[in-house]
Amino acid sequence: MPEKYVIGLDYGTLSGRAVLVDVRTGETAAQSEKKYSHGLLEKELPDGSSLPSGWTLAEPADYLEVLTETIPQLLAASGVKAEDIAGIGLDVTASTFLPVDEQGIPLCRQAELARRPHAWMKLWKHHAASAQAERMTELARRRKEPFLDWCGGVINAEWMLPKLAQIAEEDPELYRLTDCFMEAGDWLVRQLTGEWTRSMCIAGYKLQYRPGEGYPSGEYLKEESPLLEHVAEEKLGGRPVKLGEMAGRLTEDMAARLGLNPGTPVAAAAIDAHSAVPSVGIRRPGELLMVLGTSCCAMLCSEKEAFIPGIFGMVKGGILPGYVGYEAGQSSVGDTFDWFVKNCVPESYGRQAREQGVNLHQLLTEKTRKLKVGENGLIALDWWNGNRSCLADADLKGMIVGLTLSTKPEDIYRALIESSAFGMRTILEAFEAGGVAVDRVYACGGIARKNTLMMQIYADVLDREIRIGSSEQGSALGAAMFGAVAGGIYSDVSEAAGAMGHTEPCAYVPVPENAAAYRRLFREYRELHDYFGRGGNSVMKRLG
Amino acid sequence: MPEKYVIGLDYGTLSGRAVLVDVRTGETAAQSEKKYSHGLLEKELPDGSSLPSGWTLAEPADYLEVLTETIPQLLAASGVKAEDIAGIGLDVTASTFLPVDEQGIPLCRQAELARRPHAWMKLWKHHAASAQAERMTELARRRKEPFLDWCGGVINAEWMLPKLAQIAEEDPELYRLTDCFMEAGDWLVRQLTGEWTRSMCIAGYKLQYRPGEGYPSGEYLKEESPLLEHVAEEKLGGRPVKLGEMAGRLTEDMAARLGLNPGTPVAAAAIDAHSAVPSVGIRRPGELLMVLGTSCCAMLCSEKEAFIPGIFGMVKGGILPGYVGYEAGQSSVGDTFDWFVKNCVPESYGRQAREQGVNLHQLLTEKTRKLKVGENGLIALDWWNGNRSCLADADLKGMIVGLTLSTKPEDIYRALIESSAFGMRTILEAFEAGGVAVDRVYACGGIARKNTLMMQIYADVLDREIRIGSSEQGSALGAAMFGAVAGGIYSDVSEAAGAMGHTEPCAYVPVPENAAAYRRLFREYRELHDYFGRGGNSVMKRLG
Repeated sequence: MPEKYVIGLDYGTLSGRAVLVDVRTGETAAQSEKKYSHGLLEKELPDGSSLPSGWTLAEPADYLEVLTETIPQLLAASGVKAEDIAGIGLDVTASTFLPVDEQGIPLCRQAELARRPHAWMKLWKHHAASAQAERMTELARRRKEPFLDWCGGVINAEWMLPKLAQIAEEDPELYRLTDCFMEAGDWLVRQLTGEWTRSMCIAGYKLQYRPGEGYPSGEYLKEESPLLEHVAEEKLGGRPVKLGEMAGRLTEDMAARLGLNPGTPVAAAAIDAHSAVPSVGIRRPGELLMVLGTSCCAMLCSEKEAFIPGIFGMVKGGILPGYVGYEAGQSSVGDTFDWFVKNCVPESYGRQAREQGVNLHQLLTEKTRKLKVGENGLIALDWWNGNRSCLADADLKGMIVGLTLSTKPEDIYRALIESSAFGMRTILEAFEAGGVAVDRVYACGGIARKNTLMMQIYADVLDREIRIGSSEQGSALGAAMFGAVAGGIYSDVSEAAGAMGHTEPCAYVPVPENAAAYRRLFREYRELHDYFGRGGNSVMKRLG
Repeated sequence: MPEKYVIGLDYGTLSGRAVLVDVRTGETAAQSEKKYSHGLLEKELPDGSSLPSGWTLAEPADYLEVLTETIPQLLAASGVKAEDIAGIGLDVTASTFLPVDEQGIPLCRQAELARRPHAWMKLWKHHAASAQAERMTELARRRKEPFLDWCGGVINAEWMLPKLAQIAEEDPELYRLTDCFMEAGDWLVRQLTGEWTRSMCIAGYKLQYRPGEGYPSGEYLKEESPLLEHVAEEKLGGRPVKLGEMAGRLTEDMAARLGLNPGTPVAAAAIDAHSAVPSVGIRRPGELLMVLGTSCCAMLCSEKEAFIPGIFGMVKGGILPGYVGYEAGQSSVGDTFDWFVKNCVPESYGRQAREQGVNLHQLLTEKTRKLKVGENGLIALDWWNGNRSCLADADLKGMIVGLTLSTKPEDIYRALIESSAFGMRTILEAFEAGGVAVDRVYACGGIARKNTLMMQIYADVLDREIRIGSSEQGSALGAAMFGAVAGGIYSDVSEAAGAMGHTEPCAYVPVPENAAAYRRLFREYRELHDYFGRGGNSVMKRLG
């Protein structure tokens, strides 16, 4: 195999990360990060006009800036030459999309439209379309729409359809002026190659597209809004492309701006979390990856297509070629621990942390480590930001039971970690109950690499070995693999994963007595989970 | 009426308080406090020998020191003369008792017994007899002992019988050497007057004595321990005396030590919380007093005798003459707020409090005050130290539901206050469901006088006006009233309460819209209360 390199780009919520990777080993030769200059537009547009609550927009120019800043840095830092770049891949949060004109120029670039909020790029976490999402779910249930089965039974406000419904409802003129609503990933590919494509992976998970059946029916969409009836034909164009497929080649102009060769292959865009799957070397069904960060995304491939309630994405070839790719998630993991540290840790702990030269998370982790399983006497339900899988209910809330006058902050901290792990066990059991086997468990992301206590608790609660992805930039590495496939180095993503994916040499192994103790506690969790989450007592939905 | 004064002594857990009170108005002419020199003996005896966990003993000499230090101070500070002292009354925590010899000398004073832990005075909060309490409850249930009906159905480890069972079990020789197990109140009366009495009020609530029926049967007690079979006849002597009755007159010797006149009347000993009832002017049935401190004691008189599960004391004439006196309680109120402030309030709040020159409770109170009813989105179960009334289950634990990433410390603080109020409403409703009317509600104690937010929340949750006792030392004032009755100033406690009891001029009045909102939240509380507390899910008892 020749000494070649690929570039992987991972567009997160606040920054874009780029890696330059050796195609033979997956080793990182250079990496670079660029924060979006405008950050999130949550309160106001760049011109200062204010936004309603729940809105999250972004400036698409920031996403181009990531390309022009990071790629030249990768080349400079590594000394790798342009002719040795075999391909480029990229992943982006989704559904993060923008309305463009016939040339693919964002509508927000037009002076007369720039003051209209719907002309801007909407981030995945734009939550202002939740009313539309609820309404469309109800409507789909009433009409028994088949697509509900492969999206977990609930339309999420983070997907594209409810956001389109919001535009149709609030700014129908802008909706009409739009030539195409493009996923940010597809739009970036268009900027790089001039090719107008649509990633079937993103469309599968975030736009309920199903090969052979297409998008949700016009009949259904018309009932939500007449404008939406023909959205598929009118506003969702682009040549369909699959994961690892070459979407196009770098244009002369873009090559000059990036310091690369024109004609360099560019892969179809991917979803950020999904991109991490090959980075840990997953290449076969039954291997589940948890991406642990502020929230948790869990992905699993199977030969089998099963409708599992609350597993909210099921797309053939959506994660690895040839298999059905499932996606499940927990809406608050790291966010809950951060909430706790910010709101619930007493001043005396702050003093101790300063004396020991550690941060509060580290101090709590060390105190928590000393507790035996069950010693904290607490059970929590991990729904601080609702429940994604498997209840798919954003109105659920957190709960802690077992508090006494002897309860210490570390007792609660441990209960929060355990509740996340119990939530993940619930997902694993749902997969297995649906006949989708889970043979191995992997984790990646900042928490997985740094928090050894948490990963041991996960291993004990799940009662499975957990392998940890060794890349600091798992998604960017996965994107680079897509570039390697697009560039013809590997025949498909699985082959690339086998060569370029890596885990740490040691795995977390369950301690038998802890696993046994957690089996008992998990029964308690499940009883409370069903009581509060499945209608035994809907108090959480009535509160607040 | 002559210008006369009475002395009231209130023996708490950590100190004794004394007041000198004008018999005509109840106004305090002087007050004094003395901390117990040895504090609580929880880890070791005064000689350094160690104690097992759960033990709480005290040095009886400390209780005498309160007399000899505070009473001369009252006289000196007020200028009142000994001949103007019409009587002395006292109240003590209960069951706080000690083993004595034929002369009433504590066994711990004997050099050969001083190293034996059971020779010392046991405090009410000595919890090392909980196994005995559980066993005796089971036994009483099995035997269908009638006394269970008038003590709420559960024997509390804080009462005297399980503590006697612990002595019989662990140190039978000391049990045999004991001439009498005396309540600390009766023992203090004996020190003042030389009279060996037994307060029927204390024996009623803390030793399950019932006029006409006596103590729990020897048959029953024998099953717990053969030593206990004849405990009533052999070890529980003393002339029975009622509330306000003169137990005896001050001895020459004691009068000299205190600077009082020999022959000054001394009233029968009372229970500390009960003593507060007349201090707010309660003199008739249907008027409930909440003593709000670390825990909460609620007392109510009625013409009617009703068996209400979880209302753990029901004694004829036990609180006011002529009526059945009921006692209920919550095991953690102020303690829960203190736990919260110590364990769960972040450093940033500590900084704000310092900047504003207030303490954390005050800071939280001001932040909490700004929240509308229900805005915190939380419901808590107030069982941080178990539940006294009406579930009588020490193994229950605290719970919070409704937590989100937006939950602030003041949201939780408010939920804790509300849960205490909901717990009290549960008690009120149990009284009314049992046919015991609650016409008026009073509160006294530090929290009641200081925390206006909390009292308004109580008024809104209970949907009743709440009157606040104006004395800083309600129990001591009540004890002084017993002294006034013993001294012949008033014919009974009710008459004394009418003349000497006081409340603040303003009452807390429920705000109608808050009361309506709390009615809805209380339904949520009750559903959770019954689910976790009445066997729907016994997870709390399985945890920890």
